[in-house]
Amino acid sequence: MEAKRPLILVTNDDGITAPGIRALIEVAKTLGDVVVVAPEGPQSGMGHAITINSTLRCDQIHVDKGEQIEYSCSGTPVDCVKIAVYNILDRKPDLCLSGINHGSNSSINVIYSGTMSAAVEGALEGIPSIGFSLLDYDWDANFDAAKHYAEKIIKQVVKNGIPDGVCLNVNIPKATIEEIKGVKVCRQANANWEEELDERIDPRGRKYYWLTGVFKNYDKGEDTDEWALANNYVSIVPVKYDLTAHHAIQKLNSWELE
Amino acid sequence: MEAKRPLILVTNDDGITAPGIRALIEVAKTLGDVVVVAPEGPQSGMGHAITINSTLRCDQIHVDKGEQIEYSCSGTPVDCVKIAVYNILDRKPDLCLSGINHGSNSSINVIYSGTMSAAVEGALEGIPSIGFSLLDYDWDANFDAAKHYAEKIIKQVVKNGIPDGVCLNVNIPKATIEEIKGVKVCRQANANWEEELDERIDPRGRKYYWLTGVFKNYDKGEDTDEWALANNYVSIVPVKYDLTAHHAIQKLNSWELE
Repeated sequence: MEAKRPLILVTNDDGITAPGIRALIEVAKTLGDVVVVAPEGPQSGMGHAITINSTLRCDQIHVDKGEQIEYSCSGTPVDCVKIAVYNILDRKPDLCLSGINHGSNSSINVIYSGTMSAAVEGALEGIPSIGFSLLDYDWDANFDAAKHYAEKIIKQVVKNGIPDGVCLNVNIPKATIEEIKGVKVCRQANANWEEELDERIDPRGRKYYWLTGVFKNYDKGEDTDEWALANNYVSIVPVKYDLTAHHAIQKLNSWELE
Repeated sequence: MEAKRPLILVTNDDGITAPGIRALIEVAKTLGDVVVVAPEGPQSGMGHAITINSTLRCDQIHVDKGEQIEYSCSGTPVDCVKIAVYNILDRKPDLCLSGINHGSNSSINVIYSGTMSAAVEGALEGIPSIGFSLLDYDWDANFDAAKHYAEKIIKQVVKNGIPDGVCLNVNIPKATIEEIKGVKVCRQANANWEEELDERIDPRGRKYYWLTGVFKNYDKGEDTDEWALANNYVSIVPVKYDLTAHHAIQKLNSWELE
């Protein structure tokens, strides 16, 4: 990092006007020059989706007072990172920050999360990238503790960098700064969603469904993000985009495939 | 596996009428009882997106002749797997097959691919799952070699199972059965897309963009899927949904976070 202020790209998946991204912008402005490229509306659950079958809009707007430059984008969180890097910014940003998400992205949620997919896309571009999520879905959630820990963690990333091919998945418990016991580096808990399709009938008599479900954690490990969060620690999981199950290669090599 | 015929769930991301899924259904019908739950239209590039901000439709339809049961779904490929498992099927399927995709899902494409995300979702549900992709974007592509190798690989999965938490990403080169040299178990090549935002002006004078780009492979390893495919081998990459970068945990534990 040069002596000049870092260039910080900020995005999210709750949309550019969400209180969570406003909180993250506040933190980022104290640490560098901020450019926001974020979805115009909610993009939760969009995972690593990109817009290839339709067009994209991306327009400069003003949301808050301040020196940050802001663009509102019609696409997904991953689209936002791509447009920022390849179209908007003059140079590669020094940091890519995503969030603060309204709701958890711990354990398997990482795979469905637009917030985290934006951070993964940042890592793919070689940018030190962090996704932040607060375990409170409320639009009026209190982001004080999340901001406190976001600042601490961003400063460590600026100081130490992040290993190549890795980004950070940071989740913050719904608790006050005083209640939070500290920070734990964790692995992703083995959990998933038991879905319940909520079946309804529309005014014209046709069936439709809402996807809903119950989160099930099968993993009691004290080295998991779920354990840390349940015990009022901030969890950091290093996340990679090499999805290869390297441990399985040897086994598959014994198959009869010729 | 009991003596009775396996129950096989088939999905894709190109839509239920795509020739690729029709080819996969043909193979699957020779091996078991087939239920198709697939998107009503193209869902390429949807990654692991799920539909949580709007409703879903899923209706039984008839596309081809045959004994397979087919449902057309308004959602993403991952939605299709969830609806199949939690709403349509009486029991957990013995196999989840996704594809055959029109176009490559090798290396980093795995992360953007609806086809592969459906297979990952199947693995999350504890179902042996395979995504198949042919390196030919043509709607009228020749699926003969892809069908030949899909059958071989599915039979090995039925015989041997797949390690827990893992699914298979199978890519087939654009070549004849005679030209293909065999099958290689590989790791995901380290590659990404250098994007180019194709900027245009709409009839009302406003800017819009098409996402487009060039695939860049930075990884010359002969153990990668890119190498195998370039040398006319079918590639199999075992893929996992635990995204934890376990190798990075020790390093992060040295940070000053208290």
